[in-house]
Amino acid sequence: MSKTAGIIIIGNEVLSGKTQDTNSHFLCQELRTLGVEVQRISVIPDEIELIGNEAASFSRQFDFVFTTGGVGPTHDDVTMAGIAHGFGLKVIRHPELERRLRERHGENINEARLRMAEVPEGAELVGGGSLYAAVAKVRNIYVFPGIPKILQQRFLVIKERFRDAPFFLNVVYVKEGEGVIASILNNLLKDFPDLLLGSYPVLDNPDYKVKLTLESKDRVYLNRAFEKLISTIPKGAIHRIEGN
Amino acid sequence: MSKTAGIIIIGNEVLSGKTQDTNSHFLCQELRTLGVEVQRISVIPDEIELIGNEAASFSRQFDFVFTTGGVGPTHDDVTMAGIAHGFGLKVIRHPELERRLRERHGENINEARLRMAEVPEGAELVGGGSLYAAVAKVRNIYVFPGIPKILQQRFLVIKERFRDAPFFLNVVYVKEGEGVIASILNNLLKDFPDLLLGSYPVLDNPDYKVKLTLESKDRVYLNRAFEKLISTIPKGAIHRIEGN
Repeated sequence: MSKTAGIIIIGNEVLSGKTQDTNSHFLCQELRTLGVEVQRISVIPDEIELIGNEAASFSRQFDFVFTTGGVGPTHDDVTMAGIAHGFGLKVIRHPELERRLRERHGENINEARLRMAEVPEGAELVGGGSLYAAVAKVRNIYVFPGIPKILQQRFLVIKERFRDAPFFLNVVYVKEGEGVIASILNNLLKDFPDLLLGSYPVLDNPDYKVKLTLESKDRVYLNRAFEKLISTIPKGAIHRIEGN
Repeated sequence: MSKTAGIIIIGNEVLSGKTQDTNSHFLCQELRTLGVEVQRISVIPDEIELIGNEAASFSRQFDFVFTTGGVGPTHDDVTMAGIAHGFGLKVIRHPELERRLRERHGENINEARLRMAEVPEGAELVGGGSLYAAVAKVRNIYVFPGIPKILQQRFLVIKERFRDAPFFLNVVYVKEGEGVIASILNNLLKDFPDLLLGSYPVLDNPDYKVKLTLESKDRVYLNRAFEKLISTIPKGAIHRIEGN
């Protein structure tokens, strides 16, 4: 069994079409490379109760939960309050974050800026020691800001804690359409029911019509499935193969 | 009250980081322009039970539901079976889709290709009359393929059925950071509690630090809120204004 993850994207700006979320794709790619299986992504509004319900539900379902967005100093930054609500926790000012903020802002510190020190009671700081490197961890939930550049920096600092056994992947580009090869794929899965097999039609490419992905955490099993596929697909139908 | 929508992205390729979903952003932009409020996006695996539960839950919660992905002829295309499962319906071959597929493929028709005629019992075809233009509608759920180009073509054919009263939007780019203007925004919301107000920090732009979005379906209300904001924000702090 892989370690599992869920991602909660918090932000009206995504739902209203103003911003394209790229954080979930970054996290999905990184986590896959780490051997972690992302099982669900939710995009939800900046609302305390919705955030709380989703955080509590994801926390029960997955090994790791990642939230992005809603952690600034303004009215619509309610992620910390939401997560606290989901677990029946109080929101407190984290002393270490407060210290760093006061150091950063000096006499320009104000109530809005101090909101950035707020975390659910019991939250732990993980990651770097600087003001902007810390990630608040509440149970198995890692709270990230919505700005991609900052999220990426922080994730890369702490990513090793999520590492699990790797996935192995082979990719086969096929010149025939899905309607032709579907039965071959079904037969392959009869022999290799645990194979992670994806079949993706590709439009407008003169060289191939389908991209097949074969994956497993068991390299030997993957290789056997791959050999079987190669031996059953019609001669000349394979455009290209990639593997690791 | 706006009409509401939920979007279900079905696809292991998104969760495993192989593909960046762009369909949800396209739909969010289009629906916003139509005056529809997208309230939730879920990205879930190609699994019948998960699809069924999500479809049934979204169908109850939102006026319109859009699914993308999982409608081809291969083993991992289980969206129709999933939605059927969610409502306790049988999967049947839609006679009109079957007719079009047989016409298209002639003697090369096979079981895999005929899977593309499968829909939950009672599904209605909406949209164009050609093979590839039809969208299956099950209750309030519109089933789209995952390929962005096809999804976009089909959505644009049927989009007028979703139109609601429009949102009006003003955007203000501010030279001061969120830590400075947060209290101004809080005061604005005390006077205009129904204003949809977003505050988004912008990194690395020499001209402004925050993008503020003010929205409402009531143009007069929006204009009043906008005037109030402009009159309370520090002189010289506004970089640029956009509005409709």
